[in-house]
Amino acid sequence: MPVNLPEIVPASLTPIQGIRLGWAESNIKTQNRKDLLVIEICDGSAVSGVFTQNRFCAAPVTLCKKHLDAVKNNATTGGNVSGIKALVVNTGNANAGTGEQGMLDALTTCQHLAEIMAIPVESILPFSTGVILEHLPMDKLLAGLPLAVTNLTTDNWADAASAIMTTDIAPKAYATQVKVGGESINITGISKGAGMIHPNMATMLGYVATDANITQSLLDSMTKEIADLSFNCISVDGDTSTNDSFIVIATGKSNAVAITSPNDKGYQEVFDALLETSQYLAKAIVRDGEGATKFITVTVKGALSIDEAKTIGFSIGKSPLVKTAMFASDPNLGRVLAAIGYASRECDSLADLDTNQLELYFGGLLVAEKGGRAASYKEDEGQAIMNEAEIDITVQLHRGNEESTIWTCDFSYDYVKINAEYRT
Amino acid sequence: MPVNLPEIVPASLTPIQGIRLGWAESNIKTQNRKDLLVIEICDGSAVSGVFTQNRFCAAPVTLCKKHLDAVKNNATTGGNVSGIKALVVNTGNANAGTGEQGMLDALTTCQHLAEIMAIPVESILPFSTGVILEHLPMDKLLAGLPLAVTNLTTDNWADAASAIMTTDIAPKAYATQVKVGGESINITGISKGAGMIHPNMATMLGYVATDANITQSLLDSMTKEIADLSFNCISVDGDTSTNDSFIVIATGKSNAVAITSPNDKGYQEVFDALLETSQYLAKAIVRDGEGATKFITVTVKGALSIDEAKTIGFSIGKSPLVKTAMFASDPNLGRVLAAIGYASRECDSLADLDTNQLELYFGGLLVAEKGGRAASYKEDEGQAIMNEAEIDITVQLHRGNEESTIWTCDFSYDYVKINAEYRT
Repeated sequence: MPVNLPEIVPASLTPIQGIRLGWAESNIKTQNRKDLLVIEICDGSAVSGVFTQNRFCAAPVTLCKKHLDAVKNNATTGGNVSGIKALVVNTGNANAGTGEQGMLDALTTCQHLAEIMAIPVESILPFSTGVILEHLPMDKLLAGLPLAVTNLTTDNWADAASAIMTTDIAPKAYATQVKVGGESINITGISKGAGMIHPNMATMLGYVATDANITQSLLDSMTKEIADLSFNCISVDGDTSTNDSFIVIATGKSNAVAITSPNDKGYQEVFDALLETSQYLAKAIVRDGEGATKFITVTVKGALSIDEAKTIGFSIGKSPLVKTAMFASDPNLGRVLAAIGYASRECDSLADLDTNQLELYFGGLLVAEKGGRAASYKEDEGQAIMNEAEIDITVQLHRGNEESTIWTCDFSYDYVKINAEYRT
Repeated sequence: MPVNLPEIVPASLTPIQGIRLGWAESNIKTQNRKDLLVIEICDGSAVSGVFTQNRFCAAPVTLCKKHLDAVKNNATTGGNVSGIKALVVNTGNANAGTGEQGMLDALTTCQHLAEIMAIPVESILPFSTGVILEHLPMDKLLAGLPLAVTNLTTDNWADAASAIMTTDIAPKAYATQVKVGGESINITGISKGAGMIHPNMATMLGYVATDANITQSLLDSMTKEIADLSFNCISVDGDTSTNDSFIVIATGKSNAVAITSPNDKGYQEVFDALLETSQYLAKAIVRDGEGATKFITVTVKGALSIDEAKTIGFSIGKSPLVKTAMFASDPNLGRVLAAIGYASRECDSLADLDTNQLELYFGGLLVAEKGGRAASYKEDEGQAIMNEAEIDITVQLHRGNEESTIWTCDFSYDYVKINAEYRT
């Protein structure tokens, strides 16, 4: 079961004016499950995305980037809106490592949806998640599209969260609201992902919508910043998938004032609420990490740069030895220290890290300093912290003022089981 | 059981003139097992070492480096010999993350051995392997030293291989011979390691001795080159340990001519034999990798640089998703392609890798090309290759002339079991 991930309450997922969602059961990989999602976006919305950095990026990711560029360069859509009118997401098949046929399949999907919805083909962003290297079953997928469109409603967020799951145990959704100048701004989002999770990006999809009125260029920079503080701070297994995508939509339907620059009234509140939503959805992926029994937060402070802090955080958070020790509730400080020590492999500035200066904490408990176990440390106190389902690890480097937090989970028998049996 | 690792045959491990080995059971962690090893090295030997790059390097590693420098700077030992006269290795405790006390313990170990053997303290190199962050049980260790010295003989290589094991299932040793100008040169080596294995270095110890006559400075460069082609090409879990050390000893007792430069007669033969021994010992560690059921060789060809090739090799070889698929004998090409695709995270020049140009082979079978599955590929043929205990993966990038090979193992239930239960 996911680690401390509350069940979603459909009624709490506030509809976002200008967004309708529709799903279908199109039998792409499994019978009788929601596996196709269409998100309709009203005219005048800003839409921003960040995508996997995997060189083997999937066909739909390539097409997403192309369509985002195409509509941005189309003068008729204006500079403050994206021109994107629909997203289409299938689960069960990632359409990755599928060569030219894969590109054609992604394009055909968009073309069919464009006809059904009577919108331009380049106004559609396609997404796929699931098994790699298999061609999409196009007949099933195309047959599902009209059903999903017929199905479009504003209050379908919970179903949408279910429709994009792969090895996820639980659907992931979050909603929040802020007031700006007395007017409400709503934010609702969904995500999926459980394995092949590592930043930039992971086998994950994240969609966050708000009715705030945000200009396209500002939403672009906000989306990048938010991704770096949420989805790019999680790791389940260190694998970066071919399909990861994170999309933020601002429909502008709220009555609150438009936000056009970081200095505008409401900017900070909306940024914080988008970040809160995105961090919740990112952490939900880790809580539902394949085989996860622990949710682990690693914070590295006192670094010379955010890169140093993040590299050490992920060095701890990716270490199979640390993660198996966490699974065993074993306060094995040695493995954590070893992972700190070898982080210099991936960050040159750490070559002069003085391990005698740093402090390591489990929860609030000082466990190591001066190059070894803290004199005050008692194993039973460390054990008590490890027994919890939520474990905080903090490293204070004492060499600068930058810090970073990453989230990860433990490494269990079930991780091996799930991934050894996934295709069978 | 280790994957295709032949049992060692003690009689095949040729003694090296000038080297004697002695062991003791000193109850450091476990009763009634060999856990302390002394290697005596005759005067006039050249001794070279490469060590972990972990910033949390263990006290004995720090002292090894200091002693190697000290004797090299001591004019009385001459420029062509190391001045190193003994190695002392304990298992059961790594003396890592032990702060100032750890340094004192390593030094005390050397001092006691120096008295017993009547040699200078700085002529001794200490090594420890085992649990991190615990202080050495010095009374037990010091009590064992005289026993190990009493025990010194030339034909103890098999016992020595056993005396340095930690979570290893099987001892690891190898011997070979070459003829140079009609005279025999013998090479015999041992290694240990099973977990926390990743290059530069791993939780591994390797000791290779030869009776070849090689000058100190030449042996230094040969040792570095050989480490890069053997122990630095293996990964079990991507964790780099605090204690890794690889030592090459050349006693000069063979009747063959001295080797003072790479152009000398016999250089290439001796280099190749040292490399053969070191690669065997490195691969033996992977064959005995924690929980390993498969031995996987990843070769990347056609790269712009060795760094590119090695980065992609390890990206595949470290991926938990690839490794769990291998455990399941699942020809999951998608996960291998994904791992190739995200290698650019760790090697900037791969940012322009054209995934449509590369070919992927399982064994001799072309499985992927042109960004997707090869048209000729049949899953049952891929399956047949995956069913084997030894699996070769080859990537042809078609962008340059450099190549690299790395060795790794699969990721099984037993890996989790071993590492979740190690300290209990």
